[in-house]
Amino acid sequence: MDLKQESMEMRRRHGGILTTQLKVPMNDRHDLAVAYTPGVAEPCLHIKDEEDLSFSLTLRGNVIAVISDGTRVLGLGDIGAAAAIPVMEGKSAIYRRFAGIDALPVVIDTKDPEEFIRTVKLLEKNYAGINLEDISSPKCYDIEDRLIEEMNIPVFHDDQHGTAIAALAAVLGGLRFVKKELSRVKIVINGAGAAGTAIANMLLAAGAKNMTMLNSKGILHDDGRLNRVQKDIVERINPEGRTGTFRDAIEGADVLLGISTANAFKPEDMKLLAADSIVFAMANPVPEIMYDDALAAGVKVCGTGRSDMPNQVNNSSVFPGLFRGAIDVRSRRINMEMKLAAAYALADLVSDDELRADNVVVDVFDERVPKAVAKAVAEAAIQTGVARLTELPETYRD
Amino acid sequence: MDLKQESMEMRRRHGGILTTQLKVPMNDRHDLAVAYTPGVAEPCLHIKDEEDLSFSLTLRGNVIAVISDGTRVLGLGDIGAAAAIPVMEGKSAIYRRFAGIDALPVVIDTKDPEEFIRTVKLLEKNYAGINLEDISSPKCYDIEDRLIEEMNIPVFHDDQHGTAIAALAAVLGGLRFVKKELSRVKIVINGAGAAGTAIANMLLAAGAKNMTMLNSKGILHDDGRLNRVQKDIVERINPEGRTGTFRDAIEGADVLLGISTANAFKPEDMKLLAADSIVFAMANPVPEIMYDDALAAGVKVCGTGRSDMPNQVNNSSVFPGLFRGAIDVRSRRINMEMKLAAAYALADLVSDDELRADNVVVDVFDERVPKAVAKAVAEAAIQTGVARLTELPETYRD
Repeated sequence: MDLKQESMEMRRRHGGILTTQLKVPMNDRHDLAVAYTPGVAEPCLHIKDEEDLSFSLTLRGNVIAVISDGTRVLGLGDIGAAAAIPVMEGKSAIYRRFAGIDALPVVIDTKDPEEFIRTVKLLEKNYAGINLEDISSPKCYDIEDRLIEEMNIPVFHDDQHGTAIAALAAVLGGLRFVKKELSRVKIVINGAGAAGTAIANMLLAAGAKNMTMLNSKGILHDDGRLNRVQKDIVERINPEGRTGTFRDAIEGADVLLGISTANAFKPEDMKLLAADSIVFAMANPVPEIMYDDALAAGVKVCGTGRSDMPNQVNNSSVFPGLFRGAIDVRSRRINMEMKLAAAYALADLVSDDELRADNVVVDVFDERVPKAVAKAVAEAAIQTGVARLTELPETYRD
Repeated sequence: MDLKQESMEMRRRHGGILTTQLKVPMNDRHDLAVAYTPGVAEPCLHIKDEEDLSFSLTLRGNVIAVISDGTRVLGLGDIGAAAAIPVMEGKSAIYRRFAGIDALPVVIDTKDPEEFIRTVKLLEKNYAGINLEDISSPKCYDIEDRLIEEMNIPVFHDDQHGTAIAALAAVLGGLRFVKKELSRVKIVINGAGAAGTAIANMLLAAGAKNMTMLNSKGILHDDGRLNRVQKDIVERINPEGRTGTFRDAIEGADVLLGISTANAFKPEDMKLLAADSIVFAMANPVPEIMYDDALAAGVKVCGTGRSDMPNQVNNSSVFPGLFRGAIDVRSRRINMEMKLAAAYALADLVSDDELRADNVVVDVFDERVPKAVAKAVAEAAIQTGVARLTELPETYRD
């Protein structure tokens, strides 16, 4: 049975993959009186007086909503709200599995950004945080910015920032292996969508200086057709308005990142890269270049988004721990410092002893991953003053 | 430790009472590839082609949203969305415990009915059904009617109809014990809010003929200040415009139902009732009259909403099985026939042998309850043509 069949079979048999469970017994009248009426009135009254108690007295404090409008689901495009549920449910399951978070899939059946924003805001009181997912670009930028601004819980578009954090961690691992420094290397990012721009912003925040971005038309420059996020990046990385092809761009590049399309990187192109080059080909499910082909073409370190190849760049390493840390210190938002802390924590999990060309990225099933990310994120939230808690919870102390 | 303390303690310790759980393993890369990318693309594509598959391929088919705006929570009034969460969570826990339904609390932070309606509709694709809860009257009528009309999944305001079904079942049990017929008895309903009007409509649908309703001002009559639902009922039960006090109304009554306020029924008033009278005093948590006081005052059969007294009238006996049946046959709505079927099924669970003055209502923990209600409701849905399935699922056959 292939993966597709197995996926269908499993979901059909169980009716999806996520369910609810009681945390308390409900076996007799007494239990019912405590869990429901009349006992339930008491937490209601406490929360009425102090809304913040909704985080500790109800499920809310551990709930992340994985929210989509279904306009850009995986690589499948605008397939609609209902068809997006499996992805939101799968992601919710990963939150449960890796970080013990009660994530819930939420699809909102509108393509109108204003209506989407209004709806998410009206649902705020149910959640500790919001993971935006599979929303088309460029509206995903405005939706996220507006929600971050207008809500009191952290909002995080994982397709942008989760991917960016995972990519930065991978780049840092690769650079450590080839003994090059982020601030000195030439970096090329092929793909200027939501993930590409987030990666660019993140690498710049981490200290990268020499960067070129490409879209399908060539080197990204201000041709009057950039969205505001692309424009902002181009002002920083290409103020002189360089133009050119993919091959022009990658000549002598130390790091090449793909968030573009299957087979976009030809083996012969790889010979244009600098010595000890690093390539992360993150197109899903078929990468820009296969791992073995990249190495055969002379690339020193390669990674993809695939679980069946070395150096998997996977935001499943990021979002569970990230939200665990953010909600455990009751952070109001997820700022750049927290995102950087997550990336550094991930990169640090590969020790010098373990560092090899085929092991510059930590395994998503390494049980240290969510804990290390959560702790780094929680500390960064406290240090940057966006957390309601002023010190790490008991459970974080060694 | 009293009930209030225990309720607070339990919620504080566990962080609410409901959590999520995986239905499938997620222990290695293969599991992740099936549950998430790339395997997850397959159910997405199937649902894109046939939206109905979202019910069988995702959690949706077993999810009931317990939705409130927090405008009339328990007897606590308009305490707001966040403060309503404990009730929605408690109710969701009851769905899980009694019917294996993945119910989820959803509070919507608006008091505007139009905005509330719009939001619920935008969330439709997540759910198999909607339990409306703790919404103030009279807007609850319009909200429910509009959502029933404009959505393709069953919508049910439990404060109205769950209570009405439980009340009808209790009345039928009481009448069977005293050997009187519903169509011949004189019934008085004290309380003309959402639950009172739903009980009136339900009893009329079941064949009651002689009925008087009261609000705090006396016998309900068309004084130009009735809401549309009250007006419709009064046209049927009091076309002549009778007026009068509570004592006027209950003189010679066979059945007295209270959904009003604590201690509204004085023991001396009970002497005005007919011989072999039946009183269900459903105010919560303090009933209109205590069970012992009613019997001491000559009432033959008494019940309350309390779990520590005989004959508890409790919609927890109703809503889990009702939605189980409705969603198992993919009903588009919950019509009067289904509600009546639920009430008759509940009433039938008390056998002639078991029928006593202090046992006219079946125990909510009797494990036959949700199954019997579900089956009756599912059959009624099929018979009235509102179900997508044309026969009962395998699991319902004896």
